Amino acid sequence: MTTRIIASMDTGVDDALALAYLLAAQQSGACELLGVLASYGNVDASCAERNTRYVLDLFGHPEIPVFRGADHPSWADSFIPDAGCAQFHGVDGLGGFGPTSLSTTVCTPVTAATQPATKTPAAGGIVSIGGYTVDDPHANPARPAPQLLQPPAPPSSDVRQRTSIIDDGSAHVAADTLSNTDTNCPSNNFNATNDSGITAIIDVVRRWGHNVTVLATGPLTDVDAAIQQAPDIAGNLRLVMMGGSLTQPGNCWDAVAETNILQDPEAADRVFHCGADITMVGLDVTHQCLLGDAATQHWRNQAISSQHANRLQFLADIADFSIAANRASDAQLFAAGMPMHDPLAAAVALDPTLVTTVDLALRAETRSGDFTGVRGRTTGDPVGLINPALPRVHVALQVDSERFLTTITNQLTTLG
Amino acid sequence: MTTRIIASMDTGVDDALALAYLLAAQQSGACELLGVLASYGNVDASCAERNTRYVLDLFGHPEIPVFRGADHPSWADSFIPDAGCAQFHGVDGLGGFGPTSLSTTVCTPVTAATQPATKTPAAGGIVSIGGYTVDDPHANPARPAPQLLQPPAPPSSDVRQRTSIIDDGSAHVAADTLSNTDTNCPSNNFNATNDSGITAIIDVVRRWGHNVTVLATGPLTDVDAAIQQAPDIAGNLRLVMMGGSLTQPGNCWDAVAETNILQDPEAADRVFHCGADITMVGLDVTHQCLLGDAATQHWRNQAISSQHANRLQFLADIADFSIAANRASDAQLFAAGMPMHDPLAAAVALDPTLVTTVDLALRAETRSGDFTGVRGRTTGDPVGLINPALPRVHVALQVDSERFLTTITNQLTTLG
Repeated sequence: MTTRIIASMDTGVDDALALAYLLAAQQSGACELLGVLASYGNVDASCAERNTRYVLDLFGHPEIPVFRGADHPSWADSFIPDAGCAQFHGVDGLGGFGPTSLSTTVCTPVTAATQPATKTPAAGGIVSIGGYTVDDPHANPARPAPQLLQPPAPPSSDVRQRTSIIDDGSAHVAADTLSNTDTNCPSNNFNATNDSGITAIIDVVRRWGHNVTVLATGPLTDVDAAIQQAPDIAGNLRLVMMGGSLTQPGNCWDAVAETNILQDPEAADRVFHCGADITMVGLDVTHQCLLGDAATQHWRNQAISSQHANRLQFLADIADFSIAANRASDAQLFAAGMPMHDPLAAAVALDPTLVTTVDLALRAETRSGDFTGVRGRTTGDPVGLINPALPRVHVALQVDSERFLTTITNQLTTLG
Repeated sequence: MTTRIIASMDTGVDDALALAYLLAAQQSGACELLGVLASYGNVDASCAERNTRYVLDLFGHPEIPVFRGADHPSWADSFIPDAGCAQFHGVDGLGGFGPTSLSTTVCTPVTAATQPATKTPAAGGIVSIGGYTVDDPHANPARPAPQLLQPPAPPSSDVRQRTSIIDDGSAHVAADTLSNTDTNCPSNNFNATNDSGITAIIDVVRRWGHNVTVLATGPLTDVDAAIQQAPDIAGNLRLVMMGGSLTQPGNCWDAVAETNILQDPEAADRVFHCGADITMVGLDVTHQCLLGDAATQHWRNQAISSQHANRLQFLADIADFSIAANRASDAQLFAAGMPMHDPLAAAVALDPTLVTTVDLALRAETRSGDFTGVRGRTTGDPVGLINPALPRVHVALQVDSERFLTTITNQLTTLG
């Protein structure tokens, strides 16, 4: 069975692995990737777009449409990635192994040195720095930015045409060009909006309903925007999302919230309550799926006799970057490797039997303080306990991690 | 099948209902209540003891041993109940329907008026005010204390002998007397310690292992103390505890922690990791079990033709107090009545099939702040995700609330 996917990604390291996994699944007939919205989150939206195109090109799929997704969360007017993102994804979002142009013009995360300038975007308004407002002490954590590693050679294709996302031509046609000589990296280009990605989500859900899956590996801003624009799609929308944490501590400063949700809790809360068929793949399960050195070494070994050595090399490089970054952040929890957040969500979108879920009404808390909880926390919505009509979210609590890790390691090898 | 129970209770309204339920179950042969440790929590330990004895007497079981449990949490040197406890349990812990003596000498909770004196206990050291340290702004929330309602007539028995908790006489004999003319209510009697209750837990677990259930409806201080004193019992201990919240907001000021856990997170965390067979009955399920006016009206109706009208009247009175208090605190969530926290735990101790559980390594967070979480929060222990040897707790997430509410309403009616 082929699962149709439209994805919203803030393409950092694990998004790239998820994207590669979807392409491998497409190769085997299990997936049809209709398009990708590239949005703010791990990086800013322009970097996400560049990284997404780079990965699609590298793995031989320049035809898949890439749309510019949200540039900023629904509660803010602009977004700047913070140093924490660079810690886990590299300053280019791909562990330093992204497009060559980034070796000189990186999508600069906030650091102590750049803070004064980046905290005053041209467009004004409310700024989110990695999910925090400018006046929040966590907005610019004093973490050292990692060193930029030597980037790989650029992929062979420089210009490609992207085709319609819906093959009968009834919807719009997305045609983009991108040159790898493009070195413009507008970190603060807050006016760059483009709603064609939102339109694409609306179109495919209206057309295929539950026979297309929206996969969100970043903040839920894009999905929320689509539902706000076309509320009629909510009841027909199947969403698999990476984000949140119901039964485990979070991965933000407060150890309660999870990063994707903290970026836009308001959007997440609306999505949780919209009535869509939602599967939440959160830290509850992604922290059980650690990809380690054995997998990356396997890819390196396979690369030697591979037709596309650079592809397997790239996968190993970015994964090794993340493995090292995660170990540096928590030597105990991540001793075995990097948590496969986004790849697990992609895998669950194709094979829901990988996880066991509980169904409950879910909320994303939007305020911190007495009687309100912790902003960005995903927790059961108590109203759901007394009102059976409140929509339920399928929250993954258990995962067959061995099957998942074996499958993804082998599937990605087929890309070589 | 008869389930042996030894209970640790901070006898407020719902503890009293749980206690009555156990006595009803004992009457039908489903339970053998070996003894009760009366501890700080909803009230101070002396009030808990008085209330426990009062309920046992009222329902015709003066022979059941009552031990003085912990007077204060493991992290403090003394304990003072706060106004929040009085809000939900009344100033006497029984909605104003406790022993007559309390109509003039109540176990005074902290109020703005009494704060200066009560915040300086005679013994000195660290003071817990309802789970908070003296300097915490939540230590003395400015909630009005409820009016003391008209107390009922005292029970008929004034003096009774309590017998050995273990019938072969191999353990200690607990012999107590209590007169209802006892009006001494030492709220600040912090030196009143008595470890015979701890010894009783150790004795019965050593003797019966998993064939006795420790039921904790208050803080886990007593259970922790028993395990600290006799680590050998941990592997043989079956514990059913009311407390915590895994998938729902908490019921403390921060909307994260649950009251029983917040009282002594250190003790809870040790207990969660001790290797005992633990079932957690938290807000995840207790907030699904709301006892409403129909039940209390049923008891009042049955009381008319009852042999022991005062018993059913008492149950209806304290439950109506709690129903009103809960509605006043949250008109939406508790529109249908009071959450049956402790009675549900008692029922699960006798019939585990009432709930569906998930097993996971659990921790009680002991610190608030960056990287640490929220003090008093119950959450999965991430170490459990990578270490299968870490003990698992059975956390109740679903409950057959209809069966439970029907059963307890009918069972309690049999006490009339």
